[in-house]
Amino acid sequence: MGSIMSRFFAGLDVGGSTMKGGIVNDEGVPLCSVSLPTEAHRGQDFGLEQMCETIRQAIAAARLQLEQISAIGVATPGLMDIPAGVILDPPNLHPWKNVPVRAHIQKVFGKPTSFQNDANAAALGEYWVGAGRGVESLVFFTLGTGVGGGIVLGGRVLEGRHSHGAELGHLKIEMTAPRQCGCGRYGCLEAYASATAVVKRAHEALNLAGSRSLLHELRQTSGELTARDVFQAAEQGDELAERLVDQTAYYLAIGAMNAMHTIDPDLIVFGGGMTAAGEGFLERIRQYVRTLAFPVPAERTAIRYALLGNDAGFIGAAAGARQLVT
Amino acid sequence: MGSIMSRFFAGLDVGGSTMKGGIVNDEGVPLCSVSLPTEAHRGQDFGLEQMCETIRQAIAAARLQLEQISAIGVATPGLMDIPAGVILDPPNLHPWKNVPVRAHIQKVFGKPTSFQNDANAAALGEYWVGAGRGVESLVFFTLGTGVGGGIVLGGRVLEGRHSHGAELGHLKIEMTAPRQCGCGRYGCLEAYASATAVVKRAHEALNLAGSRSLLHELRQTSGELTARDVFQAAEQGDELAERLVDQTAYYLAIGAMNAMHTIDPDLIVFGGGMTAAGEGFLERIRQYVRTLAFPVPAERTAIRYALLGNDAGFIGAAAGARQLVT
Repeated sequence: MGSIMSRFFAGLDVGGSTMKGGIVNDEGVPLCSVSLPTEAHRGQDFGLEQMCETIRQAIAAARLQLEQISAIGVATPGLMDIPAGVILDPPNLHPWKNVPVRAHIQKVFGKPTSFQNDANAAALGEYWVGAGRGVESLVFFTLGTGVGGGIVLGGRVLEGRHSHGAELGHLKIEMTAPRQCGCGRYGCLEAYASATAVVKRAHEALNLAGSRSLLHELRQTSGELTARDVFQAAEQGDELAERLVDQTAYYLAIGAMNAMHTIDPDLIVFGGGMTAAGEGFLERIRQYVRTLAFPVPAERTAIRYALLGNDAGFIGAAAGARQLVT
Repeated sequence: MGSIMSRFFAGLDVGGSTMKGGIVNDEGVPLCSVSLPTEAHRGQDFGLEQMCETIRQAIAAARLQLEQISAIGVATPGLMDIPAGVILDPPNLHPWKNVPVRAHIQKVFGKPTSFQNDANAAALGEYWVGAGRGVESLVFFTLGTGVGGGIVLGGRVLEGRHSHGAELGHLKIEMTAPRQCGCGRYGCLEAYASATAVVKRAHEALNLAGSRSLLHELRQTSGELTARDVFQAAEQGDELAERLVDQTAYYLAIGAMNAMHTIDPDLIVFGGGMTAAGEGFLERIRQYVRTLAFPVPAERTAIRYALLGNDAGFIGAAAGARQLVT
């Protein structure tokens, strides 16, 4: 790697607490990565400079010169105007507002610069060199505090016409007794299947009169619960935790099935922290999909975990950069 | 129209009871159309010959010769393998099975022949010369006995990788008390928002103790109810019918909103019989969308009725034919 003929791309994934940058070669192999704190509270000018600094450090860590970088890609969370290259009003990056990310990076480095939503970028990364290598289309769900989504069709991210493509956590799946979502609305997939929702549902189940669970003790000892606690208790055979995990698989199967009946991709990919739940959890999702979806997509659509972990964002951002110059 | 330099395309839309064929010029203007009964019970060999006959009659009605037809497009309902050009097991075309539609038409006429799902074709027709003229992307819902869907992105139908793209009537929108759908599954949009579902919900409401409605009398007189009866009673101020219509608008708004949070198109189009409900009904859907969807797509996504009526299918089939030779 790093031969004189190869091209290199800088990818940057800006998150609520850290930003991760890396250099990726033409085959999608990351040469290095560096992480710096985002410290959004210090304001967006600081944030923009921190982005530049992360990119500089990544280039240095790869022992390259700026001249050797063909293009730069940046991915960020939050509401954005993708064609304009601007983050509008990101809830995770308070108090940033209307941040002209792409124009700034492009000006500082003098390189073609792409801009993308973070979940879209992760989907593109998995498509390029992760779980989706070789497929024509995929739908990606990232399971963390929220549920994010990304759709890749024939190598292109489905951005949507108003930068709202693949907001898959905010499809409505319940009307009668809808849970409130972090977005303020009701009945969204995210309100059922995010890590936050798993914890919330665990507390509700524990508070029911007569409920028995290992999680009672854990909650008393540690003062709080995480989605990981729930999944671990389920593995230890705890019945209440088992039921919560099973319901979560069902909700995610509904998300997968709705994607199959809309996009009908080759592949559904689940990424994010909850994938630590392992192959058994994935198999449970697949089983529910077989009961929920039409027979043909149920049988033929692959369902896999993501492979790139939290490198997917910067690798996908680099993939976006590469598309600018291909 | 019909100048010597123009190109002409034959489009055929095969339905459960009739098939409609027409000749369309390069600008999407239909020169004529003819309809013949499908008579599926007479078997698929008869059906294939009836398709050919409809195409022949359409060519004759346009006062053209076969030599002047550049390509032929056929749209059919039911489960299909679009790339193979085969209808698999169409519930509305009993007892047809594994019908090689495209190969047959291509062989008989010796012309490039395209094959498409009927709702996809109608979406493409509306995109070309109907409600979607000039947009980049649209999501189309057709409201009849069932709820069909079609998605057009940048001029191309989203067929999906297993011919199940845009099965929008079968997105799950309810878990707690899901209605059973015509597809046998539970909680599908179609189980709430099709004309059939409106009638079913009307009967349920009428059977509730103490319910008052104009529809009671109508049901007794005519022995049955239609969705049109419900919409008409609502216009006459009938409270129960009003509520049913309002709920239907809400369900369709959920369908629209889920499409906005997945595809994020320029435009949502509603077609099919229920569009006779008029502009007031559409405005009600728009209002619900504003309460359900994220602010940006809620504000910027146009929501309109289809314009081509039941010509959309053959015009869209012709559009598919045109794409073969463009």
